[in-house]
Amino acid sequence: MTDKNTPTVAFIGLGSMGLGMAKNLLKHGHKVIGVDPSAAAREAFTKAGGTTAASPGEAAGKADAVVVAVVNATQVETVLYGEGGAVASLRKGGLVMQCATVPPAFSKSLGERLGKTGHVLLDAPMSGGRVRAESGELTFMTSGGAPAYAAAESILAATSAKVFRLGDAPGVGSLVKTVNQLLAGVHIAAAAEAMALAAKAGADTRAVYDVISASAGNSWMFGNRVPHMLDDDFSPLSAVEIFVKDLGLVLNTGHENRLPLPLAAAAHQLFIAAAGAGWGKLDDAAVVKVYEQAGDFKVSSPKG
Amino acid sequence: MTDKNTPTVAFIGLGSMGLGMAKNLLKHGHKVIGVDPSAAAREAFTKAGGTTAASPGEAAGKADAVVVAVVNATQVETVLYGEGGAVASLRKGGLVMQCATVPPAFSKSLGERLGKTGHVLLDAPMSGGRVRAESGELTFMTSGGAPAYAAAESILAATSAKVFRLGDAPGVGSLVKTVNQLLAGVHIAAAAEAMALAAKAGADTRAVYDVISASAGNSWMFGNRVPHMLDDDFSPLSAVEIFVKDLGLVLNTGHENRLPLPLAAAAHQLFIAAAGAGWGKLDDAAVVKVYEQAGDFKVSSPKG
Repeated sequence: MTDKNTPTVAFIGLGSMGLGMAKNLLKHGHKVIGVDPSAAAREAFTKAGGTTAASPGEAAGKADAVVVAVVNATQVETVLYGEGGAVASLRKGGLVMQCATVPPAFSKSLGERLGKTGHVLLDAPMSGGRVRAESGELTFMTSGGAPAYAAAESILAATSAKVFRLGDAPGVGSLVKTVNQLLAGVHIAAAAEAMALAAKAGADTRAVYDVISASAGNSWMFGNRVPHMLDDDFSPLSAVEIFVKDLGLVLNTGHENRLPLPLAAAAHQLFIAAAGAGWGKLDDAAVVKVYEQAGDFKVSSPKG
Repeated sequence: MTDKNTPTVAFIGLGSMGLGMAKNLLKHGHKVIGVDPSAAAREAFTKAGGTTAASPGEAAGKADAVVVAVVNATQVETVLYGEGGAVASLRKGGLVMQCATVPPAFSKSLGERLGKTGHVLLDAPMSGGRVRAESGELTFMTSGGAPAYAAAESILAATSAKVFRLGDAPGVGSLVKTVNQLLAGVHIAAAAEAMALAAKAGADTRAVYDVISASAGNSWMFGNRVPHMLDDDFSPLSAVEIFVKDLGLVLNTGHENRLPLPLAAAAHQLFIAAAGAGWGKLDDAAVVKVYEQAGDFKVSSPKG
């Protein structure tokens, strides 16, 4: 339908990540047809120069590729195979690039189902957050066949700073994302637990942050999330509910594979406790409030 | 007894960390009197130019400062206050620099007891391992009064790359070390758990290592210990038993402070399981073998 170097894209999901991605596709010369149940999201995308459609199927009927940037596997299933779903109207050979964090087994099965209808799947869960989605600097953990990579080339180029290519089997990208989320979730909860111990036992928490940041106890998440705890600022960059979902997905993957994951299970309970206490929409660093509930102390501390 | 800029040091504990430290003190012009129950350790130190004494008390009677580089609080107590202990013969105003990982409350109490006998304590747990002990590049997490810092200045200069100064109250150095060990232990176990999930679910574990090392799931321990798992090489740099001990200390600190530490508790159980299976003297990365026992898979993989 268009120059093969800049395929027309049906973009499903104009949320906090999707909108930034879709705008970067526009900037790089793609025709993009956006779909989202939210009128505000559609309006934001139209203002940026995009067009919209009423359903994934309507958008996919005019496109070479469908990018799916929704929240979970249930939504992926609905936008692809539900009423007005994209697959039924996508041309033969068309690409589905799925960017949600989904169970590896779901993505593997999706690749097989799309193969039967003559479509190709790039399993491409993303990370990086809203800011990097806006700047076109996301990281994708990808797997898929050569035709899928060829079809996705310009889309990846317009939206990413880094693309990990993990082989030709759909599901591997999602598995590696799942492994990353296990570590990310455990590390955020561990950062909260460690800072809570420091605070409860009377240390200067900003000094502790400085020491740990330069020591063997450091993690990417410690460096990134502890400042939110120190500032008592839980404006959501990524919400508690994301890890309620993602650690659930991690544990299901362990369950299916008959592998016990005791640390992920413990961390999951902490995020569930945070959500249950009413903090589900706060930044995930708010898991520290679960520890703070256990005693009369605060991890936060005035800036020095 | 000597130039105040290079005090004579009674050095208690010529083990994997202590021997390297004591040799660096010699290199920097200190007179050092070593004490260790192992004849082989004493011989190694004598060959390096040190002298030895039969007891901590004998060494301390000739010294300005006592450096204690033993394994735990029980040993610190014994070498300072047991039969032939150092404190009874250390001159008034003399320094005790305690470098073990001990409960913060023990170190706080030690500072008070030493104060009553006219001595000063630098609470100075160390990290960095044998290699950095040898090269004089340890990290110390310290607290103590100005006289203790003054007395320890040349000792710290000869043995460290970095000294965190955490205030004048003994116990704070040990608390921050405890917080670091919580994170370090949880992160090693989490690295094992994540790599086990990757392997059990069929991923290329070396590819997973590369992706995570560049992603939000990364930690200092992930980068340092996962290569041991990939190579199936558990030559002990730091042993499983160290975390059986240190996470026990972490949990006791939480217990005393009435703060639940569910992640540290789960990680502790895993290191206990590894030790129980006979792997206590292997490198702490061998905690991955606890996960491998749960199924027919290996995290290790031939080098690409």
